[in-house]
Amino acid sequence: MSGADLRAELTALHLELPRQGLVTWTSGNISARDGEGLLIKPSGVTFEDLTPESMVRTDLHGQRTEGRLSPSSDAATHAYIYRHLPHVGGVVHTHSPYATAWAANAREIPCILTAMADEFGGPIPCGGFALIGGEEIGAEVVRVLAGHRSPAIILQNHGVFTIGPTPRAALKAAVMAEDVARTAYLAHQLGQPQPLSPADINRLYDRYTTVYGQR
Amino acid sequence: MSGADLRAELTALHLELPRQGLVTWTSGNISARDGEGLLIKPSGVTFEDLTPESMVRTDLHGQRTEGRLSPSSDAATHAYIYRHLPHVGGVVHTHSPYATAWAANAREIPCILTAMADEFGGPIPCGGFALIGGEEIGAEVVRVLAGHRSPAIILQNHGVFTIGPTPRAALKAAVMAEDVARTAYLAHQLGQPQPLSPADINRLYDRYTTVYGQR
Amino acid sequence: MSGADLRAELTALHLELPRQGLVTWTSGNISARDGEGLLIKPSGVTFEDLTPESMVRTDLHGQRTEGRLSPSSDAATHAYIYRHLPHVGGVVHTHSPYATAWAANAREIPCILTAMADEFGGPIPCGGFALIGGEEIGAEVVRVLAGHRSPAIILQNHGVFTIGPTPRAALKAAVMAEDVARTAYLAHQLGQPQPLSPADINRLYDRYTTVYGQR
Amino acid sequence: MSGADLRAELTALHLELPRQGLVTWTSGNISARDGEGLLIKPSGVTFEDLTPESMVRTDLHGQRTEGRLSPSSDAATHAYIYRHLPHVGGVVHTHSPYATAWAANAREIPCILTAMADEFGGPIPCGGFALIGGEEIGAEVVRVLAGHRSPAIILQNHGVFTIGPTPRAALKAAVMAEDVARTAYLAHQLGQPQPLSPADINRLYDRYTTVYGQR
Repeated sequence: MSGADLRAELTALHLELPRQGLVTWTSGNISARDGEGLLIKPSGVTFEDLTPESMVRTDLHGQRTEGRLSPSSDAATHAYIYRHLPHVGGVVHTHSPYATAWAANAREIPCILTAMADEFGGPIPCGGFALIGGEEIGAEVVRVLAGHRSPAIILQNHGVFTIGPTPRAALKAAVMAEDVARTAYLAHQLGQPQPLSPADINRLYDRYTTVYGQR
Repeated sequence: MSGADLRAELTALHLELPRQGLVTWTSGNISARDGEGLLIKPSGVTFEDLTPESMVRTDLHGQRTEGRLSPSSDAATHAYIYRHLPHVGGVVHTHSPYATAWAANAREIPCILTAMADEFGGPIPCGGFALIGGEEIGAEVVRVLAGHRSPAIILQNHGVFTIGPTPRAALKAAVMAEDVARTAYLAHQLGQPQPLSPADINRLYDRYTTVYGQR
Repeated sequence: MSGADLRAELTALHLELPRQGLVTWTSGNISARDGEGLLIKPSGVTFEDLTPESMVRTDLHGQRTEGRLSPSSDAATHAYIYRHLPHVGGVVHTHSPYATAWAANAREIPCILTAMADEFGGPIPCGGFALIGGEEIGAEVVRVLAGHRSPAIILQNHGVFTIGPTPRAALKAAVMAEDVARTAYLAHQLGQPQPLSPADINRLYDRYTTVYGQR
Repeated sequence: MSGADLRAELTALHLELPRQGLVTWTSGNISARDGEGLLIKPSGVTFEDLTPESMVRTDLHGQRTEGRLSPSSDAATHAYIYRHLPHVGGVVHTHSPYATAWAANAREIPCILTAMADEFGGPIPCGGFALIGGEEIGAEVVRVLAGHRSPAIILQNHGVFTIGPTPRAALKAAVMAEDVARTAYLAHQLGQPQPLSPADINRLYDRYTTVYGQR
């Protein structure tokens, strides 16, 4: 994908964040790996004001290399993830409400739905508390996701990070993470949900990742 | 209805799924009986990308007979239902959140609302856990719905299937199932809802199915 | 207002019901007093298919006097209300989810919000269970609302009826009833809400009904 | 900003209130300081009917000085705030449901989210009950917010007031207040959320107010 195409794609994907109810005002952002750097949302800009040109290019330490605007204050986290996980081509960050409610309790989102086994291959893990500003958040994301099939992580008292081979795949994981976080929340309000067995989770995940969709 | 009309109708009905909040990303699908086979959504395609031509025709074992794309991974389930329930002309499948929350608890949705007695004639039953891939899900749907007035079933840890004489009737049942699942959820959070007596449920159901609407 | 204007107004007001999230599929209806009769939604028609001409005229016993379509199956209830409450010019009926959740518990919606004191002058009362078909529902609505300042009533296991001097005023009451039912629900999930004193409720109601808005 | 520009801006900001789900029917209002007075929404007018010309100018005691319509019944409260807090250029008032649910319990919204530390610098405080009509509400808002970093306050049994250097900043605070009120509500339904330490709250707040966004 050319640089111009990637900027247009990234802008379009950002508009999905408010449409899907994952963000409020200017919070939340998406990045795309771009050669030896990344493209990311500018800081504090509302989604309706984003343009392909407004996307900011940084190196893999989150330092701006192109663009007039300051990059998202989460740029260092995105950069850390790209630097340590070479298969990742896109990263999404949100404070989507149901997933963040689990995170505020420092609880993983339990795998009680076949849709969750399909997409996440198990629970969505919860990382520890980390302050924004340096590499702490990125390090926690990489530490936890490196040992997991899940492309999503929730971070204590904070929100959600998702990864994927492309920004669109990471967005899908962010959308599905909020969806299953909501249903799992509702299920826990009604009582004690039935667990899925590890064997069934494995069967569902294997099928979904090899048979589902168009090949 | 001609084949072209049925494809257009099926495409239009699919767009109602996200509009009514029943689906997320590419999950959920609708099928229509079509002679000795069925028409169904292609697998893993987003709703906004659907066209009449993209709908896939399969036989009544879920094997593709027309179309370039792979059919929904739920095609075998739809096919099983049509094969065993000859009065069914349309089937809808969703993971709508409130109904699925009841399903995650393996609890039927209790009939505590007059609107539920009208449409479902009693509780919405919950079938057991079944893995996707073969005929297990279809068999569970048919086993449970054969003994019920309800056109909707929830499946443990999974989601919702609804049936109807037409795809539009099955869609109505899916919309109403989520609506009553939500109100029943809210009612159970507030306390112990009042039951409806079986006699009142029967009176409401009989009236709704003979007097309501235009004749 | 001329008959044609009233039909156009009634059609426009019906479109607010799905916009405000008060109805699902074809449920819910609005009527307007029209001389010695009333105009009401036809039965089982979706909101987007309504036209001014499709509205059905009935007498004050709910028997159709004009129109090709069958009137709402709630027409007898609306008619009973107009017959017994001469100040009523409009009636709205919904199954809006939060208000109906209180109704499923046979609990009035307690007056814990200043916005509720303003609009309803106290709790929204809950009437007993009554079957559709005859005059039982209308009689219960009139029996309860005759002794109340509230323009809204919830009916056990069923839904909401609101009244007003005009259909638009009744619609406002239906919208506000769901709004306060939701906030009161959320407040009760968080703990034991603070009561409002009867004296404060009276002060708020008196001010709202004499000072608020344009004179 | 010229008077005409301010009226256009104020009208546009009001349309965000229903778009963001903060208001119902005619409730809720925004004002802007305008020289020795303020501009505010007219009382009881629906949001879609607002025009720049319909905005009402009052003095800093809430008495109308320009405009045909009566000002919002909350004008005296807005005026009191401008009179006592010279740094305030905009005020927003809503009954947004999640924030108001906390207010109905007379409970501050606890600071359990990094997004909340960023925007509010701590919990959102809850003021005592005050009747509309005089200066009681304004006095309670000023008394509480004078000792707080939070630009938002909830008032017992009532709703939300937010302040900012501009009406747009106050609107952002109202949007974020409802967002964090919702996530905090969900988190408390799931269990006992993890607290944020005062030191971490300070670090987050300091960073957000000095580094975030475009400079």
